[in-house]
Amino acid sequence: MKVAIAQLNYIIGDFEGNANKMFASIEKAKLQGADLVVFSELSVTGYYPHDLLEKKEFIQKAETAVQNIAKKCIGIAAIVGAPRVNQSERGKTLFNSAFFLTDGKIQSVYNKTLLPTYDIFDEYRHFEPNTEFQVAEYKGEKIALTICEDLWDEQPTANEFGKDKLYKVSPMEELSKLSPDFVVNISASPFSYNQEGWRKDILVSKAKNYNTPIFYVNQTGAQTELIFDGGSVFINGKGEICKELKYFEEDFLIVDTQNIGKPELQQPAGYIEKIYNALVVGIRDYFHKMGFKQAVLGLSGGIDSALTAALAVKALGPENVRGVLMPSKYSSQHSVDDARELAENLGIRYDIVEIQPAVDQFEKSLAPLFEGTTPGVAEENIQARSRGILVMAVSNKFGPILLNTTNKSESAVGYGTLYGDMNGGLAVLGDVYKMDVFKMSRFINRNGEIIPENSITKPPSAELRPDQKDTDSLPAYEDLDQILFAFIEQNKPPGEIIAMGFSEEVVTRVIRMVNMNEYKRFQAAPILRISSKAFGFGRKMPLVAKY
Amino acid sequence: MKVAIAQLNYIIGDFEGNANKMFASIEKAKLQGADLVVFSELSVTGYYPHDLLEKKEFIQKAETAVQNIAKKCIGIAAIVGAPRVNQSERGKTLFNSAFFLTDGKIQSVYNKTLLPTYDIFDEYRHFEPNTEFQVAEYKGEKIALTICEDLWDEQPTANEFGKDKLYKVSPMEELSKLSPDFVVNISASPFSYNQEGWRKDILVSKAKNYNTPIFYVNQTGAQTELIFDGGSVFINGKGEICKELKYFEEDFLIVDTQNIGKPELQQPAGYIEKIYNALVVGIRDYFHKMGFKQAVLGLSGGIDSALTAALAVKALGPENVRGVLMPSKYSSQHSVDDARELAENLGIRYDIVEIQPAVDQFEKSLAPLFEGTTPGVAEENIQARSRGILVMAVSNKFGPILLNTTNKSESAVGYGTLYGDMNGGLAVLGDVYKMDVFKMSRFINRNGEIIPENSITKPPSAELRPDQKDTDSLPAYEDLDQILFAFIEQNKPPGEIIAMGFSEEVVTRVIRMVNMNEYKRFQAAPILRISSKAFGFGRKMPLVAKY
Repeated sequence: MKVAIAQLNYIIGDFEGNANKMFASIEKAKLQGADLVVFSELSVTGYYPHDLLEKKEFIQKAETAVQNIAKKCIGIAAIVGAPRVNQSERGKTLFNSAFFLTDGKIQSVYNKTLLPTYDIFDEYRHFEPNTEFQVAEYKGEKIALTICEDLWDEQPTANEFGKDKLYKVSPMEELSKLSPDFVVNISASPFSYNQEGWRKDILVSKAKNYNTPIFYVNQTGAQTELIFDGGSVFINGKGEICKELKYFEEDFLIVDTQNIGKPELQQPAGYIEKIYNALVVGIRDYFHKMGFKQAVLGLSGGIDSALTAALAVKALGPENVRGVLMPSKYSSQHSVDDARELAENLGIRYDIVEIQPAVDQFEKSLAPLFEGTTPGVAEENIQARSRGILVMAVSNKFGPILLNTTNKSESAVGYGTLYGDMNGGLAVLGDVYKMDVFKMSRFINRNGEIIPENSITKPPSAELRPDQKDTDSLPAYEDLDQILFAFIEQNKPPGEIIAMGFSEEVVTRVIRMVNMNEYKRFQAAPILRISSKAFGFGRKMPLVAKY
Repeated sequence: MKVAIAQLNYIIGDFEGNANKMFASIEKAKLQGADLVVFSELSVTGYYPHDLLEKKEFIQKAETAVQNIAKKCIGIAAIVGAPRVNQSERGKTLFNSAFFLTDGKIQSVYNKTLLPTYDIFDEYRHFEPNTEFQVAEYKGEKIALTICEDLWDEQPTANEFGKDKLYKVSPMEELSKLSPDFVVNISASPFSYNQEGWRKDILVSKAKNYNTPIFYVNQTGAQTELIFDGGSVFINGKGEICKELKYFEEDFLIVDTQNIGKPELQQPAGYIEKIYNALVVGIRDYFHKMGFKQAVLGLSGGIDSALTAALAVKALGPENVRGVLMPSKYSSQHSVDDARELAENLGIRYDIVEIQPAVDQFEKSLAPLFEGTTPGVAEENIQARSRGILVMAVSNKFGPILLNTTNKSESAVGYGTLYGDMNGGLAVLGDVYKMDVFKMSRFINRNGEIIPENSITKPPSAELRPDQKDTDSLPAYEDLDQILFAFIEQNKPPGEIIAMGFSEEVVTRVIRMVNMNEYKRFQAAPILRISSKAFGFGRKMPLVAKY
């Protein structure tokens, strides 16, 4: 059987746009003689629609879209993902379903069994799990339809409890009893640089264990924080990856199950390059899917804003990115020069706006109240917030969306000013540790200097008081990032982190800073997720707690 | 059997403090001759610990606490709620459990069957559902232990799909086969003024249908956004509420199942009074549980800041609340007078701080960039954000936490400035519609003027430009609030809202405003929840979507 894998980038709730993309793929597949074309999980709505799934008219539009797609399936079959109303009297309102379409109508429907409800996944909120197992029969072949997590009944252990079997049911175990010729897995797997190996391992082991080929069809493109990396694959019954589609972009491939041909695989990329690609897609889709064109950001001469600007230019083009330089009396001349050089290297517009007069006026207005106190955090924050006001004024006046430049190390320990440098519509580096910020800057400069060398090599500083350096109040980033990764991504308890070779004092202090700053992150901009545990809705901590 | 209901206010993760409270209740119950004392759901940890449940050391501390409580149960039994590790090889790591403690040890354990995962509930994220049903036997009686949602297999229909049986299993149906003498339901039910009738209806109908008395034991106090209202009850097998504990405070009562005695019920309160009590508890617990004492807020002379100040004074005392008056050139003298009068009525400190000089300096700094443009939103926001800077400077300098004064109507339509008047550590009125803000202000003034009459009667205005009124850009609040309630709390589609008697143009515009401002609410302060659908983590909408 000739199966077309259609790896597409959907917009959530854009029923017409999504269906039109699918129509085009169905047409293309038909022209190229495919028997079946497969789209990804919830392709009709885009993944993940969250509480839009609670709106009846949203579900009705999805139903109509599925019917319209079915009508195009003449002389070809298609598998699409969409929500479906649970007709039973009991249970949640919806199923997360795979529709098998052919002869112009819905032939059969398969519901998702394992509903991921952890980290950024929230599917049991909306869906009832499936409990019945059947295969689709088409052109004499039996196809086992599964949806993403259905193959993940066993999970690599990433939790403190060492448990790797997250579910009671194994859909593959059940489906294998029906002797399918091959498995189709329609998926919506977001990228995380430190977990993507797992995905292939799971698919390979399932194909091999059940001696059944697997078509894995992922979506691509970003949905606010989540970045889907594509990389759909066909794996034969020996567990060999025979075909692999592109990463971070749309792609289309027909696989003839009778005649696989020679392997077609993608060039492997290093993890920094992958993160770079992910962030570029994340920025681009945030803007384009919302109908925004232009971005603005504050350029401090530091590495975070430089890297964010470089990513934005790659995503949106230099004509759509503008920088605002807002030196204060504590900014070195070097910082201004570095920022200017960056803007010139990138070919973006930049403006220099004075903050000192407004800062001085604030301090004057507050003088009667603040009399007798020592200048400190309050005054530093006035500077950071004055910059926030100015760059938001540019955003409000001319329309560009403010990009936030906070990195994950800073976000973790609360090293940033709420309503100041924490402002922004999208946090580009919020899931990238500082050490990776350095590495990615070097990656960007691999063919010539774009980010000024000085921005990379000078000691990081917020420049909110004379000669301030990040290391005045934080451990060296080499150590800090390792402690944070162990605590956040790996969820290790303090004792195990100390055992990695850090002092108890430093580990305790870092963890305390992470815990104490939940309230700041609560109000932070959405963060492009590139790891297995980003700050945001995938990591929910109580704000009011003693712990 | 003499059963003590211990309705307590827990702090999340405060194992020692929570256990000490329970020790005291066990002692008291013993002294008063009780056989059994019942605490609420996850009482050992406080409800809801969110992803702290993913930390092994957190679970270990909970286990230790349960064992320590068991040791106190000599000559008495206790039922406590705590997480428990799932020892089976498959399934989620934890159960949400009720521990039956007596003779100094854990006698038996019962796991929660129905795991609410909708709105603000997220239990399937962490817990495996129970599938086995047993009763506890104690002093010759059979006790059916259930946990909160276990009695809620049938739910009043509040969704667009008209479905009222949310779960496939009915724990009461299963447990009734074991002929229990009575049911204990340990609970953590947050308050919502428009749903609390449901709770009693469900309990009454379960008691009556199964002809079995029910002890319903709730927690009280606030956990960040969520406010638990107590109101624990004993219902006899005829479905009559015989005993009712206090609302919004700790309480303790012993019920002798052999000799119920005369009914003891609470005075019913109107819904505005309930919301008022809820918000006072919400503020108080946010501060006290975090170890904060003082609050600060901007006083504009308007009704929202006046009401917030009055609530804060009730919660924290006048000595712990301070106001900052920050008039601009568009503020009327009346506004300043109203704000001053309010502060004097409340007996709180207030300071007047000038914003105009800083605003002027911002505009001067931006003049070269803004040349040729017409003053508009950008300039209005500079004012709102300058106020935000000043009041945050007071917060940073002296330590009081900034209270946000945005009401739900404003938050819904995005009528507020991000990083300006949307600033704050806690949004007190974020779930209170404007019409209820008026009603609550009248309620506060019921025994004499506290909130100046003028703040209540003058047309609401943001005072960001000359003669600005809210109704310049919004429908009248009478209409707006009804449309919003239908759209947000009732999840009605546009057609049904129009059928309520509003024009299509207005309904479409309001819904568009709600949808377009998800990005603002994403960065808003945590909101004290008093309705069935508050903005915040109980209502998740995709930011990037076409809908």
